[in-house]
Amino acid sequence: MAKRFSVSEYADGILSGNRVMLSRAITLVESTLPTDQALAQQVLDVVLPHAGRSVRVGITGVPGVGKSTFIEALGLHLVREQGKRLAVLAVDPSSQRGGGSILGDKTRMNELAAHPQAYIRPSPAGRSLGGVTRSTREALVLCEAAGHDVIFVETVGVGQSETAVHGMVDFFLLLMLAGAGDELQGIKKGIMEMADAVTITKADGGNELAARRARAEYQNALHLYPLAPSQWSPVVTTSSAVTGQGVPEVWEVVQRYVQQTQESGYFQRRRQEQNLHWLHETIRETLETRFYQRPDVAQRLAEVQQQVMDGRKSAFGAAEELLGL
Amino acid sequence: MAKRFSVSEYADGILSGNRVMLSRAITLVESTLPTDQALAQQVLDVVLPHAGRSVRVGITGVPGVGKSTFIEALGLHLVREQGKRLAVLAVDPSSQRGGGSILGDKTRMNELAAHPQAYIRPSPAGRSLGGVTRSTREALVLCEAAGHDVIFVETVGVGQSETAVHGMVDFFLLLMLAGAGDELQGIKKGIMEMADAVTITKADGGNELAARRARAEYQNALHLYPLAPSQWSPVVTTSSAVTGQGVPEVWEVVQRYVQQTQESGYFQRRRQEQNLHWLHETIRETLETRFYQRPDVAQRLAEVQQQVMDGRKSAFGAAEELLGL
Repeated sequence: MAKRFSVSEYADGILSGNRVMLSRAITLVESTLPTDQALAQQVLDVVLPHAGRSVRVGITGVPGVGKSTFIEALGLHLVREQGKRLAVLAVDPSSQRGGGSILGDKTRMNELAAHPQAYIRPSPAGRSLGGVTRSTREALVLCEAAGHDVIFVETVGVGQSETAVHGMVDFFLLLMLAGAGDELQGIKKGIMEMADAVTITKADGGNELAARRARAEYQNALHLYPLAPSQWSPVVTTSSAVTGQGVPEVWEVVQRYVQQTQESGYFQRRRQEQNLHWLHETIRETLETRFYQRPDVAQRLAEVQQQVMDGRKSAFGAAEELLGL
Repeated sequence: MAKRFSVSEYADGILSGNRVMLSRAITLVESTLPTDQALAQQVLDVVLPHAGRSVRVGITGVPGVGKSTFIEALGLHLVREQGKRLAVLAVDPSSQRGGGSILGDKTRMNELAAHPQAYIRPSPAGRSLGGVTRSTREALVLCEAAGHDVIFVETVGVGQSETAVHGMVDFFLLLMLAGAGDELQGIKKGIMEMADAVTITKADGGNELAARRARAEYQNALHLYPLAPSQWSPVVTTSSAVTGQGVPEVWEVVQRYVQQTQESGYFQRRRQEQNLHWLHETIRETLETRFYQRPDVAQRLAEVQQQVMDGRKSAFGAAEELLGL
């Protein structure tokens, strides 16, 4: 276990942009030790007034879509051409199953990782979705307090984690491949509808025509769908991390979205709603964990669940039985 | 308050297909009185082994799409041509706001309502979404036990209630109009993705060409989306409640879906998952209600929420504060 510091040592380090201290504070929010969590909350409370000023972008796409190379290309554009400070986080609860996490292999983005204005943090390993969601959201606050202007939150595009990421970002970007059917791309239902922008990746080599065709198709399909509460019409672009074509344009789309929703007030409103959402989610999760961990409940649960599944007991009657224990 | 009966009077009445007793038992599950709810649970436990044998179809679409006339046309086809016994229920939490509930005006479906094989029950008034969801789901079990082969659960297509209905039915049908953009139709994001079938209504008069064009467009858009876990490809049809064109075809689609998912085992698996889902939802709701109704929590909540919304307090720190009260 690494050394622990005082609340003010963590906070001062973060606020002065000390990357080592930022990393150590993130280790703290990722820790499952109660003493670490208590310390992390104190650090968060101190730095919170300095957070909230970044643009938070969720980025998703299935393996093979070229997510790392795209993130590196867009990230390098931000730090080099736009003078931004960028943090890249990840939500990847699947890492608990497979061992390796996304972003775990930093060599995937070595140019970006080496840039002084970029900070890359892999997804914490061995955590549940709830756990990784919580620690990523807290890491996001720490990165903002450390002065990052843009936060990317990467996720894998095949599971529940997209909803969690959508709940912590301002803008949601979906990466898709031309040519492959969605069935092949493995994108889950509902993810498309969260997208504020879709970019068809790998629009280079002999693939440009197919990418343009896919762009038209998706743009068409998205127009059939109703407008989100943001009143923003999702944009579909093509891009190539190899040639750089279309990469700055993605950032222009994000900026246009931010401007439009800040003017309408939606941007601020959504952040307030997200904050409230996490408050009530945390309460819900804690209440459920406390309940299901009770020995008397745990002992009865399996049998009652089986009775409900088989239709021998009504869901409501069974719930009453467990709640009445 | 109407007269109450014994558990066996309710149960025997329901199982013998007595519509008056069925209605009285539904009144019981809709009641918020603890004594009524306890009695309702006993009735449900007795009839539960006789439930579960219907096909449950969720039907949604915004006001103006012709939902009542379509349901009446499809319903009459089922009772007259297919010899089915049909129950029509509704989930309409908005009725608490406006006063009038969907299905409340039975004259909207007077031919169907008068048919001896059809049973129509309006949405209970003045209930929250959680309340109306629960009572509708219990009413569904009672209707099945009373021997109905098909249950329609109608909802309004503009809110959260679709997700609740989707969680209690086997098949989800979305009614759409040709011509109007989705923005105008007011369908919320996510609802389209739940649909196992879409029917373009009012395909009559001068509207047939537009309906066929809309059908092609939606069929195309739905094909771009990934397959649901059911492995079923959503079907888009056109129909007219006036001429009857396309109405039997909708039922054929439902039957095809049921056959395919029963053969694959998905149908049964989904029902088991739905049962489990309602067990855990009920537990969650009860835990949350108990927590937020605690006087000490209620007293602190507004201030803490404001602090979280304004970014003065972290969501997790605030949750800990409330949970530690």
